[in-house]
Order: sequence, then structure tokens, then C-alpha cells
Amino acid sequence: MPDTTTPMRTIEWDYENNTIIMIDQTLLPREYKIIACNTIDSLCEAIKSLRVRGAPALGAAGGFGVALGAFRSNASSLDDLLEDIQTAGENITATRPTAVNLSWGVKRVIRAVEDARNIKEARMFALDEAKAIADEDVEKNMQLGEHGAVLLEDGDTVMTHCNAGRLACVDWGTALGVIRSARAQGKDIKVISCETRPLNQGSRITTWELMEDRIPVTLITDSMSGAVMRKGMVDKVIVGADRITQDAVFNKIGTYTHSVIAKEHRIPFYVAAPVSTFDFEHLEDEIEIELRKPEELKFFGSHQIAPLDVEVYNPAFDATPMENVTALITENGVFYPPFLIDEVKIEI
Amino acid sequence: MPDTTTPMRTIEWDYENNTIIMIDQTLLPREYKIIACNTIDSLCEAIKSLRVRGAPALGAAGGFGVALGAFRSNASSLDDLLEDIQTAGENITATRPTAVNLSWGVKRVIRAVEDARNIKEARMFALDEAKAIADEDVEKNMQLGEHGAVLLEDGDTVMTHCNAGRLACVDWGTALGVIRSARAQGKDIKVISCETRPLNQGSRITTWELMEDRIPVTLITDSMSGAVMRKGMVDKVIVGADRITQDAVFNKIGTYTHSVIAKEHRIPFYVAAPVSTFDFEHLEDEIEIELRKPEELKFFGSHQIAPLDVEVYNPAFDATPMENVTALITENGVFYPPFLIDEVKIEI
Repeated sequence: MPDTTTPMRTIEWDYENNTIIMIDQTLLPREYKIIACNTIDSLCEAIKSLRVRGAPALGAAGGFGVALGAFRSNASSLDDLLEDIQTAGENITATRPTAVNLSWGVKRVIRAVEDARNIKEARMFALDEAKAIADEDVEKNMQLGEHGAVLLEDGDTVMTHCNAGRLACVDWGTALGVIRSARAQGKDIKVISCETRPLNQGSRITTWELMEDRIPVTLITDSMSGAVMRKGMVDKVIVGADRITQDAVFNKIGTYTHSVIAKEHRIPFYVAAPVSTFDFEHLEDEIEIELRKPEELKFFGSHQIAPLDVEVYNPAFDATPMENVTALITENGVFYPPFLIDEVKIEI
Repeated sequence: MPDTTTPMRTIEWDYENNTIIMIDQTLLPREYKIIACNTIDSLCEAIKSLRVRGAPALGAAGGFGVALGAFRSNASSLDDLLEDIQTAGENITATRPTAVNLSWGVKRVIRAVEDARNIKEARMFALDEAKAIADEDVEKNMQLGEHGAVLLEDGDTVMTHCNAGRLACVDWGTALGVIRSARAQGKDIKVISCETRPLNQGSRITTWELMEDRIPVTLITDSMSGAVMRKGMVDKVIVGADRITQDAVFNKIGTYTHSVIAKEHRIPFYVAAPVSTFDFEHLEDEIEIELRKPEELKFFGSHQIAPLDVEVYNPAFDATPMENVTALITENGVFYPPFLIDEVKIEI
């Protein structure tokens, strides 16, 4: 285990122990702790509990997960090992069905193993591919940030929802990566972070990582987006995405609400996401939205905030129709409507 | 003190001890507890901490508060007593500057005392007037409920924000009073309650009082209003109000956001409030909005949810412009735009 005071990526491979290590995001901002996932079960638990979360980080988690499956498999033949990693991949993918990057990472590493001639090679190919996903993610975010930074002007205040920052990615971030790139260009950018109920990724994680980087940030409740936009306190909105279909952006619950408010006030509403988030083969109606546990709205830690037997509706995501999106910011450039798959994926 | 298992009004006068008793709403839904306020200081603390809250309940709190001031005063002359209750009234009013009902209740009881010829009479006049405010509130809410119930159809799902229920009033409720009246007419009405950050009056109080009355209620986060309206899960929105100026409705932060979403989906957006909430002599810009403590967004009980030194913006209310309001529901009837003071106050 590395020294926990050393800055590390959100999720990494520990070459010493051949295991996955990650920042446990459920403990932030109270505690900065690095945990190890030695088994597929512990990785699945970490994904389900949102110890690692955020679309791009989940791509890396899926990739490293398949590698972990290859290293933990007791198979004595290549065929058995391939079967084991197939099962591992399915279990990992099932933890968060709406997150397209997770299954993308899983599939990409499984595909990379296909050419292996023996178990040792399979493990090596899996790990190399997973590591490539992580490295590419950082590089893509830097490119995405450069493209998006052009949209921000010196003095802008950007509102964001949830955490599309370096902790949602392997490093740098998507929505917050754009802000980091703009600040790196010398622009003075301030951030308004919505707390993001029910799990408060905005108050716990976005504020924490921006304050670590000394980027000015003000915390508000999600319901205040209307009030702050009406008061002229917001110049642009930038959010991330968990999946982008032909007709809609799936992102953390509450995103759609902010998009309507932004439209009402003629404030640009940008979605920053790597091309791996795009799923233009599907339409909104074909995507299942994950329903999470009612307890998330009834408790805060051990603190009860609602009647124990109250009925709760708790979808993890909502869908923002494309007509509410001003532009998509990707590593391949900024795209305006109509959004065409060929255009977005031009460099793939 | 009455038996705490007996249903009581939100706020009452305890004739045995000549003091104010109220349901401590900060403890709901975990504990149903009745507390006594023996001094102006303890009453001010209770109002500031939202042990008693909601525009109409604050009217009664202001009224009973002046009566409490009259009973606690050690004045030996009528003039000194009048000075004491003036000071008490000012202290009470200052606890929540945006809530017009609070100062309305205070002023009304102070005015009633003006004709008193001695200290005993002053105390009697104050208490009678405060009791009248409380009784009239219940009666007005029943009338308001009858008028509003006409707007609801059998099978409707009504979304509401914060708590404009019996616990926001002396009894019955405004927004939830409309729902109670519609159900009393035999209509099947369901409720979606927004949790109402940061103090969760929706999850703590609205769900609790509706479940006590066996009215079906589903709890959502505030940010889900867009998603549920887009899915067609909401037929009408009804909220309360803390102050209604010529051009805007001041209500719990988040109300404006819901009003924009309702407009986007062509869902009627109703504001239910007694005439005492109207302040047509002022415009939105002239009203100071109470800024509450940053800690409300950093902690949940003792559970820390944000960096301790993060900057927070925490207004208690927002302003919804009149063009987003479908109709105002009052004890004098339902009023559609343009909203004219003479029309609304016709029966005063």
C-alpha cells in the first residue's frame, strides 16, 4: 500500500500485490483513505457503495476488474480462465446497469485477452489494456479540458452538479477538467457546486477536490439552482454524463431540472464527457434507470430524517433531452446540435 | 402540560401555567414532543430554531408571544407594560424578518391591547386576541381548503415542497389543507413530497403528518421534480407562501425552481396561503431574504457532509414571479392573474 498522504489517481493497479487500490470516496471529506480490492466481490461492493463512482473512473474500474479476475482465477487452462473473466465481467457490469463506461471497460479488456496464447499472457494482456484505459482517460480529459476551456471567459462562474471531477475520472476530470484547463490558461473561474442529493457528491467530493486545488467554490442545495440563475450568479452550467444516447444525456438525478432552469434563463448548458460515454445505438426509452435504496433518503449516516416506513422514489439518474444541451464537450472537440455520431467519433 | 399522546394544535396557550406550548418540529419524525416557552427568549429561540415554523403558525406564535410578554412583564403601570410588550414584539419579529405573518400577529395583538384600562385588562385583551388569531387560522384554513379542493380531481397526484400542512399552521394546513379537504370530499389524492433541503421539512414533517392521516405520500429529493414531472407523475403542484408581494411569492428555497419546471411541463402551479400572507404594498426587490447559517449545508445532525471551511450560500426563501403562478388559493376564494389586492381582500 502506498503512503496515504501521497496524491494518487482515483483508481490504480497495485503492481506489488497485483490488486486494485482506490480512494474511498464515501469517506470524503472527513477522511482521505486508500482501500484495496483483492477480489471481484470486494470490487463489486466498492462500485455499488460508490466508493469509486463517476463514468470515466468506472471505465477504469471495469477494466482493472477484468484484470483482477484474470489474476485471481485458479483456472489451469486458458479456456477456463476466459470463462472466469467472462463471469467476473458480468458480475461487475451488473452492479450499475446505467453506467455505460463500466461495461465498456469490461468489454474492452475481455477483447484484449482474446489473442492470448496462455494464462500468463492473458493476465499480461488484461492488465496492459486496463492500464491503457486509465492512461488514456487522463490524456483524453486533458484534451477535453483544452477544447472546453475555450467556452469559458475570464471571470465566469460555472455551476456544476454531482462530481465530474478528477475523482469521477482517473485524474483531471471532465466538467471540472474544463474548469482546471481554463484556470491553467490564466482565466479566473469560480464554481457553484450543487450538493447533489441524496448522496451529496457535490458537497462531499466536488467542493473537496476544488478546495484542494484552491479553486473558489460555493456550495448550494440542488433546489437553489433556480434562485442563483435568476439572480444572475451563474454564467455557464457544465455537467458530466453517465451515458449519452441519440436523444438524451443520462446523468446524476437533478441534471434535467438544472437544464430546464438554464434554458429558462438562457444560460449555456454544457455536457462534458469522453466519447466512451456515447451510446448512439440506443434511444432514451431503451435505457433502464437504476433505482437505488429508499434508505438513502431516510438516513444521513445514522441520522434518521424521514419516517422509517415512508414510500420513496430514488432513481440514480435522469435523462436530459438533447434540445436542452447547448454543446457536448469531448476529447475530439466541442459539438453543437444536431449531434451526429460520425462527427463526435470522427477520430476514433 | 397535557398528555403528550393527545393530538394537539401546533401551538397553543397553556391556561394552567399561562405559557405557550408547541410541538417541537425539529424532533420529528423521530420524536413527538411538546415543549413549553415560558419566556420571550425561549420563544425567540424556538422560532429561530424552527421548532415552530410555517407562515400561519408564526402568526399565532407572534400573537401568543405578545400575550406572553404581557403575562411575564413585571411592570407596575400600564404604560410600562405597553413598553414591555412593544420590546417583546420587536424581539420576536426580528427572529425571522422575511415571515410577514410573524409581525402581522405581533402587531395585531399589540393593537388589541391599546384600549386596555389596566394591566389585568391588557393581559386579557392580548390573550383573547392571540387566541382569536389561532382560532381564525383554523377556520380560514378550512375555508381555503374548501375553495382549493375544487381544483383537484379524483386520482390526482399533487407535488408539494416544504411543509404547508397542519404543522405549518395552527391546524388543518394550507397546501396540505387543500388536499385534506379534497380527500374529505371523497377524492383519491396522492402526494409527492420534496424533501426540502437543507432542513428537510418535507421528509421530516410533511411525510409524517400525511402518514398520520393515512394520505398516500412518496418522498423524493428536491432535484427530482424535473424527472417526475417529465415522466407525467405529477398532475398539480401546490405550495404555501411566507409572503406574497404584488409581483412575487416568497416561499421556501426551491419553490421557484419547481415553478419553472411546472411551467415547462404545463402543470398547474398553485400557491395556497391565507390573506394575512399578502403584502401587496411591497415589491419583490424591497424584501430582505433571510440568509441562514452555512452549517445547515455542512452537517446533518452531527454528521459532517462538506469541508468545514467551504463557502456556502444559504438563503431561506426564494421569490417566484407571479407569471409562474396559475392561481392563488385563499380563504376568500381562488384568484387567477392578474392578481388584484382588492379582489383578494374583498371580504376583509
